[in-house]
Amino acid sequence: MGDDAAVVRARALCVTSVDAIVDGVHFRLRDGWVTAREVGWKALAAGLSDIAAMGADPGEAYLVLGAPPGLSEEAALEIVRGAEQLATRAGASILGGDVVSAPALAVTVTAIGWADSEGQLVGRDGARPGDLVGVTGRLGGARAGIELLDRGLSPPHGPDGARLLARVRRPLPRLAEGRALAREGARAMIDISDGLATDAGHIARASGVRLEISLAALPLQDGLHQLARALGLTPWQLAATSGEEYELCLCAPPARRAALERALAAGGDAPAGGEDPAGGEHPAQITWIGRVLAGPPTAALLDPDGREVELRGYEHRW
Amino acid sequence: MGDDAAVVRARALCVTSVDAIVDGVHFRLRDGWVTAREVGWKALAAGLSDIAAMGADPGEAYLVLGAPPGLSEEAALEIVRGAEQLATRAGASILGGDVVSAPALAVTVTAIGWADSEGQLVGRDGARPGDLVGVTGRLGGARAGIELLDRGLSPPHGPDGARLLARVRRPLPRLAEGRALAREGARAMIDISDGLATDAGHIARASGVRLEISLAALPLQDGLHQLARALGLTPWQLAATSGEEYELCLCAPPARRAALERALAAGGDAPAGGEDPAGGEHPAQITWIGRVLAGPPTAALLDPDGREVELRGYEHRW
Repeated sequence: MGDDAAVVRARALCVTSVDAIVDGVHFRLRDGWVTAREVGWKALAAGLSDIAAMGADPGEAYLVLGAPPGLSEEAALEIVRGAEQLATRAGASILGGDVVSAPALAVTVTAIGWADSEGQLVGRDGARPGDLVGVTGRLGGARAGIELLDRGLSPPHGPDGARLLARVRRPLPRLAEGRALAREGARAMIDISDGLATDAGHIARASGVRLEISLAALPLQDGLHQLARALGLTPWQLAATSGEEYELCLCAPPARRAALERALAAGGDAPAGGEDPAGGEHPAQITWIGRVLAGPPTAALLDPDGREVELRGYEHRW
Repeated sequence: MGDDAAVVRARALCVTSVDAIVDGVHFRLRDGWVTAREVGWKALAAGLSDIAAMGADPGEAYLVLGAPPGLSEEAALEIVRGAEQLATRAGASILGGDVVSAPALAVTVTAIGWADSEGQLVGRDGARPGDLVGVTGRLGGARAGIELLDRGLSPPHGPDGARLLARVRRPLPRLAEGRALAREGARAMIDISDGLATDAGHIARASGVRLEISLAALPLQDGLHQLARALGLTPWQLAATSGEEYELCLCAPPARRAALERALAAGGDAPAGGEDPAGGEHPAQITWIGRVLAGPPTAALLDPDGREVELRGYEHRW
């Protein structure tokens, strides 16, 4: 620290992800939909979720803050504190960064993870015909929370509503789950940042296989139904298009099914218990939502009648 | 590539730097003072210069492009091409990145370097009383080039003028020199990004020593005199305050002087010869500009009469 660059003792493989979030594009600070602290948390969550999807161990993170005129020093510190809060929880260390003048608040995060061998890591290209498709946790909460904030709607009463907002404000990357799934036989994995409909397509194309996903099988976040109706969507449409979920989508051979379920039921390798600030399940369970077939590389989404429907990840513009 | 994160086989020590440049703050694209390609080059240069100042070997780089409405795809590609051009020249690899919508063009760079042992690396905190203070190359060109562009002045005729503009548009990080200086006994080092006056102070404070620098000894970029006069400055004031020089300032024991000079005269460990696109010397020579004393941690700048003068790195606002 205090030098031109940070120096860290390495392990065998270095896993690096870069992400940025910009005020007015990925969040809206001024309207009070998120606090400065939550901006820092969210920025780091996106980076750590990429590390989780590789099955790597979290390591270091670096923040670059684009500070607009009028951003108070206290707000800037709160952003860093929010990132540090998540880093502490996730087992990562924020080792440095930079602050530059910019026309709008932007937080760029470099997240570095580590692995001891290639066998520890999982890419997007390992799905094979016959594999099952699974997903961690429950889907739909992130988009539901954004829609509630954007439309000024009242969240559902009680803990369901609070969890929908928490999915937007304090998403929790599935680091322990990612490691456990990689260890127990997942052979393709991605984090759901663009929406399952889009991210499953990334696995399909990278692996050269067809993914068939049954929308009726999607695990739904509690409290979605009323909002979905108000949006003119079915709950599974909402769940399949919801980005920034930071749940993991994986493909694995059926023979690994029980081992994968057991590994997650044991909480990945995370300490068990504790409240999940992100409003998700903790520990996350795994739900099997489809299968992998030979065929043109695409992710086919099947409605409850077995008809293929066109859905794309919903990109919210704040 | 194509996964959530890039995976690289590591060496013992991972050296990481993050930097950002923003249109209207650190450069001005629309007025034609730099091209899109030069924006990419400049952004990466800042990051690699931090790696150089540690004495590390360049490794990977990651770009995050904040793309404003109206940025053409061709301009975005040119930015990446400019960074790739410098990466190729510097022995670094651009392995990934991200593009996000933003209100102004911004390029954030994560530069990663590697070292096999702590002995290969040099921080800012190793300067000791009795050490010499040295600097690579020639100073003043970067600020001179910015002032020429900002004031719409004609550059000096001939190669001197072209070099002043090149210092702004295509700065070249001193990677080979940084490695050679670290190997041959530099025990504190920093890259001149904020101006020698400011950066020497960073070494002084980190090392807990007093640096005395003779302004008359500064190596001046050719072609400074006329511009300095027009700005009401002496050439050495211009040189001492010029930021984004990306030359190296180092402290080393006098016993290492000859070895350090020989190492740089041999071109560091870089391939010799070739035109320097940055308008600097190639290979860079070293000039001894001061000494390290015990005393309150500060960098004292002495004018030709031996009087201490107050100068701070000049931060240009485009």
